[in-house]
Amino acid sequence: MLTGKHLVFVGGDARQLEVITQVTDNDASATLVGFADLQRTFADTTVSELSESVFANADALVLPVGMENDGRVDTKFAPEPVLLTEAHFQAMRPGTYVFTGIARRVLGEWCERYSLQLVKLMELDEVAILNSIPTAEGAIAIAMQETDITLHGAKTVVLGFGRCGQTLAHKLHAMGAIVHVCAQHQHELARIHERSLIPVPLKHIDHAVHDADIVFNTIPAMVLPAAVLKYMRRDAVIIDIASKPGGTDFRYAERRGMKALLAPSLPGLVAPKTAGRIIAASISRILADSDDNDYEGEELWT
Amino acid sequence: MLTGKHLVFVGGDARQLEVITQVTDNDASATLVGFADLQRTFADTTVSELSESVFANADALVLPVGMENDGRVDTKFAPEPVLLTEAHFQAMRPGTYVFTGIARRVLGEWCERYSLQLVKLMELDEVAILNSIPTAEGAIAIAMQETDITLHGAKTVVLGFGRCGQTLAHKLHAMGAIVHVCAQHQHELARIHERSLIPVPLKHIDHAVHDADIVFNTIPAMVLPAAVLKYMRRDAVIIDIASKPGGTDFRYAERRGMKALLAPSLPGLVAPKTAGRIIAASISRILADSDDNDYEGEELWT
Repeated sequence: MLTGKHLVFVGGDARQLEVITQVTDNDASATLVGFADLQRTFADTTVSELSESVFANADALVLPVGMENDGRVDTKFAPEPVLLTEAHFQAMRPGTYVFTGIARRVLGEWCERYSLQLVKLMELDEVAILNSIPTAEGAIAIAMQETDITLHGAKTVVLGFGRCGQTLAHKLHAMGAIVHVCAQHQHELARIHERSLIPVPLKHIDHAVHDADIVFNTIPAMVLPAAVLKYMRRDAVIIDIASKPGGTDFRYAERRGMKALLAPSLPGLVAPKTAGRIIAASISRILADSDDNDYEGEELWT
Repeated sequence: MLTGKHLVFVGGDARQLEVITQVTDNDASATLVGFADLQRTFADTTVSELSESVFANADALVLPVGMENDGRVDTKFAPEPVLLTEAHFQAMRPGTYVFTGIARRVLGEWCERYSLQLVKLMELDEVAILNSIPTAEGAIAIAMQETDITLHGAKTVVLGFGRCGQTLAHKLHAMGAIVHVCAQHQHELARIHERSLIPVPLKHIDHAVHDADIVFNTIPAMVLPAAVLKYMRRDAVIIDIASKPGGTDFRYAERRGMKALLAPSLPGLVAPKTAGRIIAASISRILADSDDNDYEGEELWT
C-alpha cells in the first residue's frame, strides 16, 4: 500500500488515468496538474493549477512520456501543455522520486542538481518486458488489418530477438504463423531454435525476407535498406515497431509500391489501461521499496 | 489439375478474384459475367455480357455468396448486379455443377428442375472449418481494437464450441487470454477441459460472463438476452460472430451503455485472399473428383 504518500501528476494521456486509479486504490493521495478538462474524479485527489507549492509536498512527481528540454509536458486533459521550470524542481524535497517514460537532457540535469531520484520507467527491464505484450498485440492487429491473408499459415519474419522480438515471435507462432527470426548472436539463434521458431543469422536477412508475407522489425538500426527491400515481394507488408525513425528505408519502400508502416509506441495506443497498470505497478513497487516496507501492492501477475 | 474444364463466374467480391486465380492456375478456362469494371486479366479467361449461350458450355457455374430469389447476384466489379433468369439455368447441361455460398429457395428449385448439381460451399464441413481461421482472426482483431486492455491476461468467454468456437478459443488461449467456454453438451465440456480451457455449462452462462472483459458469441440463438446482459460489467465488450441477427439483445446492450458488435461474414472482410483459396480448393477438389481423376490440385495444407 502507499498509505500517506502524496503523488503529483503532470500531464499525460489515457494511460495516466489508469496509473492514478491504481495508486489512489493503493491509498496514496494525488494532485493533478494539467488536467483542467478531466471528467472523472479519484479518491483523495485534487486538480490544481501549476505552482511551486504543489511540488513542495510531493513524495513523487509522475511525468508521462517525458519533459521536453524547454520544460514542456504534453497533456490530453487540458487545452495547453504544462510548462515546468527549474523552480518547480527546486521546490521538491531532496530524494523525491521523479518518474518519467524517458529523460531528455534538461530533466536529467534538474533532477541531479536538486538531488531528485529520477526513474526512467521505459528503460526498466520489467516495464520493457511487460510493455512488449501490448506492443506485440498491436503489431499483430496491424498485420491482420493490412493483409488480405490470415496470419495462420502466413510466412512471417521477425527481425530481432530482444524484449519485443521474443514476445512477438512467440505470439505469431501461437497464432499459427510460420515464424522466421533474424538475430545476430549465436546464443540468440540457439534460443530461437529451442522455441521451435526458424533461426536466420541477421547477415542472411535477404534470404529470410525474400518470400515473406509479413516482416516485423524490432531492431532500431537500418536493417531493411533498399538493397534488401528490392529482393522482397512487392505485396509483402512491413511493420516496423522499432523506435523512430525505425529500421526501414520507407522512401524506397514507397517508391517500390510496398506497404511499410512505422508503428512505435503501441502500448499507449492499443491498450492504454494495461499500459497504465504496468507503469502503476512499477511506481508502487519502487515507492514501497523505498520505505523498506513489506510491499503489499498488487503485481500484474498476482 | 482442371485441364479442359470451363467455369462461368457470375458476380462476387475480392474473394472471387482469388478463386479465379487458383482455378485458372489449375489450367481451367473461365468466362466472367458481371466483371465489366475488372482491371486484372487471367489466363484463358474472357469477360462477357450475360447471355444464355455463356451457360451452355459451362462445366460449372460459380456464384458468390448466393442468388436472391429474384435472380439478383451482387457484384463488386460492375455498376449493377447481374440478374439471372430460369432460362440461364435451363441452358446448362444436366449434371453441371453450381457452386454457391448459400442457397435460397429459387436457386434450389431451378437447380433441381434442370438436374444441376448444387454445392452449398458454406455448408461443407471442410470449408466451414477452414473459414473458422479467418473468422477467429477477425474476431481477435476486433477485440484488440475495441478494448483498452491486452488480450493477454484478459478474462474472455467464448459461447459455443462448434467449428468457430473451437478455433477462436484455441487462438485466444494461445495469445495468453484466460478462456472460459460455454457449451451445452457434456462431451463438449470434457473436450474444453482437455484443451486446458475453462468449461462452463451453458445454463450457467451468467456465472461465466458476469466479470468478463470480452465475450465472443458463436451460437446462432438468443444466448445473451437482457436477463444475462444486466449482470455483466458495463465496460465488457461483446463480439457476436453468429449468423445474423446474432445471439445478443443489441437494443438492451445499447440502452445499458455496453459495447456490443455484430460481426458476421468475417472471412471475406479480413482475409479475402485466404477465403478465396479455401473456396477454390474445394471447387477444384469436387470438379476433379467428379472425373474420377487422380486429383493433383493443391490442398491448402500441402
